[in-house]
Formats: sequence, C-alpha cells, structure tokens
Amino acid sequence: MKEIIAIIRPNKMTQTKDVLNALGFPAMTAQRVMGRGKQKAIIGEVSFDIQNETLLKEEGTMRYIPKRLISLIVPDEDVSLIVEAIMRVNQTGQNGDGKLFVCPIDEAVRVRTNERGTKALV
Amino acid sequence: MKEIIAIIRPNKMTQTKDVLNALGFPAMTAQRVMGRGKQKAIIGEVSFDIQNETLLKEEGTMRYIPKRLISLIVPDEDVSLIVEAIMRVNQTGQNGDGKLFVCPIDEAVRVRTNERGTKALV
Amino acid sequence: MKEIIAIIRPNKMTQTKDVLNALGFPAMTAQRVMGRGKQKAIIGEVSFDIQNETLLKEEGTMRYIPKRLISLIVPDEDVSLIVEAIMRVNQTGQNGDGKLFVCPIDEAVRVRTNERGTKALV
Repeated sequence: MKEIIAIIRPNKMTQTKDVLNALGFPAMTAQRVMGRGKQKAIIGEVSFDIQNETLLKEEGTMRYIPKRLISLIVPDEDVSLIVEAIMRVNQTGQNGDGKLFVCPIDEAVRVRTNERGTKALV
Repeated sequence: MKEIIAIIRPNKMTQTKDVLNALGFPAMTAQRVMGRGKQKAIIGEVSFDIQNETLLKEEGTMRYIPKRLISLIVPDEDVSLIVEAIMRVNQTGQNGDGKLFVCPIDEAVRVRTNERGTKALV
Repeated sequence: MKEIIAIIRPNKMTQTKDVLNALGFPAMTAQRVMGRGKQKAIIGEVSFDIQNETLLKEEGTMRYIPKRLISLIVPDEDVSLIVEAIMRVNQTGQNGDGKLFVCPIDEAVRVRTNERGTKALV
C-alpha cells in the first residue's frame, strides 16, 4: 500500500475529488495549507481566515497562496493510475500546479471489522 | 520505528489518549478533520467552526462528520500492542469506527539531547 | 528521497526557515500544533485562536503549548545536513526543543512538468 500526497490549487479540489471518486477512490484526507507562489512551492502556515480564505498575514517577505493538501491510501497497483488522474486534472502548465509524493504504508486496519491490508481500504 | 495514524470519533479521543498514556505512550500529534459518514470514510476539509465544531459548510452532496486524526511514533515491537489498544477503545461495530495506518519511520532525534532512534521516543 | 518532519518552538520558525532557505531548501509545509511541555512532548489539538495564538482550551489536566510542525522532502544525501542545521538553530538545551523524524518517500512528481524524483524537488 502507498500514501499519495498531493498539494494542489484550491479551485481544483472539486474536480480532483470527482475524478478520484469516479475511479473508485472516494476515501481521502484534505487540509488547507498556504503555499508560496513561483517555482519555490513553500507551504506556509495556516494563518488565513479559514472560512473565506482571506490572507490575514504574510510571513516575512514571501507571499503565500492558499493550497490544498490531499492524502489517500491505495494499493500499490493503483498508484500510477491515481497519479496520472491527479496530474490530468491539475496540470495547467502554469507555476503553482503543485506536487505529488508517494510514501510507503506498511499496514491498514478497519477498526469496525478488524479487516487488514488492502481489504481495509475499499 | 513506525508511525501509527488513527482516524477516530471525536468522542473517543479522551479514552484513546488515556489508554495510550496508561500503556506508556503519552507522545502524540492530533488534528481535527472532517470525515464522510457511511462506509466511505472520506476525510474532508476543516471548514467547520474550530471551537464549537459546528459544521459551517457541506461540500458538494456529501455530508462530512468531525473526526480526529492522531499520530504517534513507536518502536516496532510496540506496534501491535498500540493497534490492539486503539481498536479496543474505538470499536463499536457501527460505521464510522475509523481506520488505522502503520508507516515506516527511518530515524527519530530529540533536539535537546541529540538522542537518536527509540531513545528519542521515550 | 526522505521526508524530514520537525516539531519546533514557534519562535524558532523564522530562523529555521532562513537557514533552510540559505542552504537551498526553500520548499516546506508548516502547521500550527499544540504541544505538551516538559519531556513528554504530546502534541495536542489545534484548539487555540489561530490568529493570535491564545490558548482557548486545556485538555484534561495537561497543559499544551503552541508548537510548529514543519515538513520537507529532500534527497537522501541531504538528510544529515538538514537535520544538523535544524538542530543547530533549535537546540537550546531546555525542555521543549522538539523532535525530528525521517520518513521514506518513494516518489515525487512536479505536476506542471511531469518531472519525477529529485528533479521534482528543486
């Protein structure tokens, strides 16, 4: 199993969720984070108005831009499908398209049923 | 060393912390997240009132339910004890009992003392 | 590639970012978390005023202290440099100096360009 972490534009969240859901991967975690613009994608602190996403503070001399960080746990054999799907929806060719990371996961457990491994993911 | 990530019900947080503390594992990180009900445990955006946990927004047509995500780093030999303890406290048999994930950790360092590995965890 | 996770004092954030930027590692994610004082570095829930960082709630009988959690993805060969740099800036010798964790990362992708691996990190 792998964790896929994607840092994407806020206005791509709905489309990203829709495509993942349509492909059969509805389970995910999502967080609001702040990202630096230009090529240097520094994700900063969540120091903005969490409801209407107004930037409350700029740290130092860098400008931060709201981003979304989504994470989902998937079987090894589905990683490339999901990476390609997220890229298809998020690639505009402009700076700020975001990044994906893939991390190893040793075990998953569904608390209700004791199911382990990929059976816990479905 | 392993990271254990648990997504649980908010009303199970105190009991979960208590049992982990009693077992000798007081160190953890915790976040408030939003989770989708039913079997599809989609964790959504933290778009609710962070103080009184009122749902401010529902995304699309899915309903999100407040969840807690806790994370702790433990020695390999303690993983199964902690997984069983978290499951004992959180298993109600109803949908929404949550999920656990186990991830590899290569190194831990206590900044104050330079201690490395499992010595940095105690 | 590795993910380096550091849990540090809020008043060390600027200096930590500055040294990482100066070393050529500007990309990071940062979150505000609550940490327990003394040796037991329990990171608690973000239940404080996110703008002025006033503690709104104390959980149970433990006192929580605001902390920062930063995360950056780096090539394997840069891990020890970055760990040493973060420790140099954050080590005061007092309780609460924080902890570092190093986790494996299998893959990184820059969405805009399709670049993979360490090329996606620069």
